[in-house]
Parts: sequence; C-alpha cells; structure tokens
Amino acid sequence: MRRTRFDTSPCPIARVTDLLGDWWTPLILREAFLGARRFEEFQTRLAIPRAVLAARLERLVAEDIMVQREYEQRPQRFEYRLTPKGAAAWDVLAAMWRYGSDWFWPKTKRPSLYLSDTETGNEIIPQVIDKNTGTPLDLHTTRVASRKRTP
Amino acid sequence: MRRTRFDTSPCPIARVTDLLGDWWTPLILREAFLGARRFEEFQTRLAIPRAVLAARLERLVAEDIMVQREYEQRPQRFEYRLTPKGAAAWDVLAAMWRYGSDWFWPKTKRPSLYLSDTETGNEIIPQVIDKNTGTPLDLHTTRVASRKRTP
Repeated sequence: MRRTRFDTSPCPIARVTDLLGDWWTPLILREAFLGARRFEEFQTRLAIPRAVLAARLERLVAEDIMVQREYEQRPQRFEYRLTPKGAAAWDVLAAMWRYGSDWFWPKTKRPSLYLSDTETGNEIIPQVIDKNTGTPLDLHTTRVASRKRTP
Repeated sequence: MRRTRFDTSPCPIARVTDLLGDWWTPLILREAFLGARRFEEFQTRLAIPRAVLAARLERLVAEDIMVQREYEQRPQRFEYRLTPKGAAAWDVLAAMWRYGSDWFWPKTKRPSLYLSDTETGNEIIPQVIDKNTGTPLDLHTTRVASRKRTP
C-alpha cells in the first residue's frame, strides 16, 4: 500500500514527517549521530530487519541526509556518513529526546540514559527557544502565517 | 502486520518515535496546535482517511496526548483537546518546522509559510539550545551516558 506523501507540502512539519514518519528512520539517525557507519553496525545495534534497514538507508541517501562511501575495495564495502543536511537533523532528535525524557516515563522514574557533554561531563538538556527573543516557545502566541499574503 | 514497538525502549528518542512514527500523527498534532478540535475539522483540514484519523486520535487519547470531551449532548458529539503532555509536543514540532524550513526547500526558494508571534507580529525561529549553557547543540561533543553506570 502506497502511503500518502507529504514531501511537497507547504508546511515544513509535513515535509519532515514524510521522512521521519518512516518509523525506523529517527533511530537509524540516532545511531549515525552516535558513530555508526557500516550496515552491520546499524543492523546489530538496532536489531532491525536487513531489508528495512537497506530501504531506509537508500532513502536517506536519496534525500541527501547520508552519503554512501566506499571504505574497502576487496571485498567492496560501503559506509554511510551524515551530510550537513543529516547533521542538522540532530536538533529534531534532541527535541525528541527532551520530550521523551520529560513525558514518556512514569513520574517517579527518570530515564536511565541522558545526554552528556564530552568536554565538561555535564548533562545536556535540549530546549527549544525562539532565536529572535531567546525565550521558550509559547504556543498561545504562535500562529502560522503566509509570506504570500498581501494586506 | 504488527510493527516493531519502541515504547519501552530506554532511549527517549525511541519512545517518541513510537508515537510520531505513526506518520499522520505530527500533522494531527499540528492541526490541534492551530486550533482544530473536532473530528470533522481534522478530517477536512488534512484530507485524511476517516478510519486512519479515528485510529490516530484513539491512540493520542490512550497516550494522554489528547483528551476527548463531549461538547454536545443531542446528538452526542466529542471534541479533542491537547493535554499538558500534548501541549509539550509543540517543541518537537517546532524543531521539525525549523529543520524542514532550512533543509527541505530548494536553496533559491523559501517556504511560503512561517511561524509568527501574534503579539509582536515577528517571525518565530525555533532554535534548539542546551538549557545549561544557553548555546546551540554541538553534535561533536554530545554522547549518550547512563545514570546507572558506576566507575
């Protein structure tokens, strides 16, 4: 069954959903951010079916999120590296990390995993702000506007 | 086919993926953030198959993201409202909005839609920072650590 596509939507959320909505994809990206490069690494770390992994990696390459590079000639072997577009996805995953940490565990229990800064050893707590004001987002004063609109 | 579940994973990204990976779900949430409450509103705005919408809303209620409230008795009608857990998902969608805006359009073309502050009229540009340092995230100094680990 072909699913509905959102990749030409005028809404940026819709276009990202089209990609991240392939539900293994955020986890493949997570492993890439944590250093995985080879098919076998992704496969072992995620216990993902090989055919699913191959299809997801193929799409990530087609979307310019990852690039495939040969790292061995005999036998010919490839690894997958994040492109700048792929590296930029970290912010989305970091926002997911924060949201999951805050809301997807019982109140009496914290996640065992946390993000840590390798230089300071301190915990990293992702927070989404408005770049223009430096303040956290306020849903109640946010609306979607169109650049095309004329008064 | 039952898909793999991630909702008991130790990784916060995985738990959110389990929810957002239902690929219509971020768009249903988007409409809720923009004020949609009634089944017909979601259905019309998204042109989503009714059975899919019903299943997604049912899951969002089960996950405590939305709550179903009766707004009319004869005939009996319900609306869907975001819970605090649902409202908190806005940060994730905002990060998706930013990522989509920056990377999912051709370089010569900006998205026609943008986020606007209703009080100031200014554009809202979501940015993910580390709450502890106030600086943008740096993937190169980020790792996942375990609270359980002992030296």
